[in-house]
Amino acid sequence: MGSDATGDARKFGERILDLADDLAHWSESSGSLTCTFFSDAHRATARQLRDWFAAAGLATEIDVIGNVVGRRPGARAEGRTLILGSHYDTVRDAGKYDGRFGILCALVVLESLGGVPLPFTIELIGFSEEEGVRFATPYLGSRAVVGKFDASLIDVRDSGGRRLGDVIAAAGYDVGRLPSLARQTDQILGYLEVHIEQGPVLLNDDIPVGIVTSIAGSARYALEIEGAVGHAGTVPMNARHDALLAAAEIALFVERRAAARPGLVGTVGRFEVPNGAINVIPRRCELSLDLRAQDDATLEEALADILNEAQTIAARRGVRLSIRELSRARAVPCAPRLQQLLAESIARANVPIRRLTSGAGHDAAMFDGFTDIGMLFVRCGNGGISHSRLETVTAQDAGIAALVLRDALMRLAE
Amino acid sequence: MGSDATGDARKFGERILDLADDLAHWSESSGSLTCTFFSDAHRATARQLRDWFAAAGLATEIDVIGNVVGRRPGARAEGRTLILGSHYDTVRDAGKYDGRFGILCALVVLESLGGVPLPFTIELIGFSEEEGVRFATPYLGSRAVVGKFDASLIDVRDSGGRRLGDVIAAAGYDVGRLPSLARQTDQILGYLEVHIEQGPVLLNDDIPVGIVTSIAGSARYALEIEGAVGHAGTVPMNARHDALLAAAEIALFVERRAAARPGLVGTVGRFEVPNGAINVIPRRCELSLDLRAQDDATLEEALADILNEAQTIAARRGVRLSIRELSRARAVPCAPRLQQLLAESIARANVPIRRLTSGAGHDAAMFDGFTDIGMLFVRCGNGGISHSRLETVTAQDAGIAALVLRDALMRLAE
Repeated sequence: MGSDATGDARKFGERILDLADDLAHWSESSGSLTCTFFSDAHRATARQLRDWFAAAGLATEIDVIGNVVGRRPGARAEGRTLILGSHYDTVRDAGKYDGRFGILCALVVLESLGGVPLPFTIELIGFSEEEGVRFATPYLGSRAVVGKFDASLIDVRDSGGRRLGDVIAAAGYDVGRLPSLARQTDQILGYLEVHIEQGPVLLNDDIPVGIVTSIAGSARYALEIEGAVGHAGTVPMNARHDALLAAAEIALFVERRAAARPGLVGTVGRFEVPNGAINVIPRRCELSLDLRAQDDATLEEALADILNEAQTIAARRGVRLSIRELSRARAVPCAPRLQQLLAESIARANVPIRRLTSGAGHDAAMFDGFTDIGMLFVRCGNGGISHSRLETVTAQDAGIAALVLRDALMRLAE
Repeated sequence: MGSDATGDARKFGERILDLADDLAHWSESSGSLTCTFFSDAHRATARQLRDWFAAAGLATEIDVIGNVVGRRPGARAEGRTLILGSHYDTVRDAGKYDGRFGILCALVVLESLGGVPLPFTIELIGFSEEEGVRFATPYLGSRAVVGKFDASLIDVRDSGGRRLGDVIAAAGYDVGRLPSLARQTDQILGYLEVHIEQGPVLLNDDIPVGIVTSIAGSARYALEIEGAVGHAGTVPMNARHDALLAAAEIALFVERRAAARPGLVGTVGRFEVPNGAINVIPRRCELSLDLRAQDDATLEEALADILNEAQTIAARRGVRLSIRELSRARAVPCAPRLQQLLAESIARANVPIRRLTSGAGHDAAMFDGFTDIGMLFVRCGNGGISHSRLETVTAQDAGIAALVLRDALMRLAE
């Protein structure tokens, strides 16, 4: 970077972090940040974003699903629209950067562009809902924008029994207008999202930003093992059918199989021996499997190997295994042309090129099949921790992300 | 067995099972058998046993701790006393034979002896408490008989807050008389207990009775592992510190190490990932270890190996392991002379000799250091299951156990 760019980066970065600090003042929980769909804190956050968008010269609107939209018209009326976005809702006891970083980074870049129009229109969207905390249904905001908001969704209820449609109506919106939020696919140039990595890859490689190659495909399963109960003192080792030990073997195989391939991760996050007692051989064990891969073929192969091995382990130990699929999601590839665009801008910032898969889901995934997707990741500190108040980003990295995004927009304009 | 013995065995066996059926009518729980210390059902069970003891010609008493004692005087006033016993309390939703079998087997044998005195006195004791259900303190009955009833024990409380001493007083007993229950060690010839095996060893070997060589020593530990939390999608496999996987490795090592030595069993019965979620890398895992061995050296070696390996696993995975000892009990050897006595009687019943360790604790363990101990195990059906309504014993096996006990008593008298 030249000294001008370095100065810009510092200013950009500091402003992004300041805005994130400000935005975190609105929270449902005292002493920590929680901002879930259409809570008072969520509505206040939306209004603050709208005000900042307006101050940057954007034409603003808070739409019926709560997305904060800022529009920057292009030079030509017939020009298409580039969407920049990420989400402003949070998990409970969240960090300040998950989602919000991408909105604020784009905002700071648009502020810096001044009044000169680009050839294309830009829509900056702060999506209202990505985490799925309140209604156990993620991507409410981005879903609406790409026309994937199924009408039946307005009937889902939160843990207090309140219907999504009623919550929206109570905020003064006409739920009937939801379908009108869908953009026309032929009008859209692409979708670019900046997001914190939420993992340790860039941190461990000491690189400030990275290019997402795909959002991982995932498979989630519930496994249940039934063996034979027995007295911990009286049943010899070779006469046991211990459900826990079968589950332990499966968990370790998941680790081994996932570690054998790059771009593949596998996790057993839930693991329970119901009514387990210190002196009783476990009869039942329930465990979960979460498997994610950069492409569908890698996922399918690993999944087949793991489920096969689980059956083999169960047969060898004389226990019964039941397997239930909970969810499946295909991998979402990022567009090669947008990856290339980001790579060139990163190179121009004198930053090494690092490509990586996103193991977490993002609003970008909703744009799959709708328009080209590009994602830029920014390094997290603190071991890469996210969904936690320990989430950090440095001003320097934030600034580099903004420089890269600005450069990408300028070069897209050429 | 000759045809006379076969006939006796059948009669003995059927009567033992009938008595066990009758005794199971008193229960705290409807539709299942539960009989815990000083409940109404427990008191009624004691009175029924006392009545049966009296009908067999024994001088009876229900003592202050609830033991049902039946005394059969020996031919010589200065003769010593052989104690036969087991317990009549049960776990919740219990089987009909755990504990009770030994009392009823000895009762049926004493019934068959008629009035002819043996050279030694016999005390048949139905111990009131062995399972530790109500006061989380096992062996209340046998503890008192061997003088190991610590005075502070009367202050333990049940889950309803009732003090042991108050429960005894409310039943009309003078708690101050507890110390008087202790027998004089030099007056005691030995202690013999018949008990169901509560395991599958005799069943798998197709042998009706077995000689206990020792009551296993045991060690119980609570292990807690603390790793690093992480997002299941974003943390590469090689950057994880997964507490669950460390625990899984430890559990499998416990199995492998225990299986490597006969007379050794190891169990992880509790295993928990607190707040485990399908998409979160487990930060904490708590597990229990229950290790039992036929002798103390075997236990110590295995325990050292397991705790060492657990540390090695934790270090390799970069997780923190804490280890807390919950309890230790030394192995209690059965007296060679009583093992030999039982072996000869078993041989005279034309049954193969099978020696085995008791992995479960028994009242006999309380007599360690007090007098010589002998234990005879009877085969369980149903895979050896116990502490369950699925517990079974056949009349034939019950009869063989009675024949062996009667023969042992007669030969002890010679």
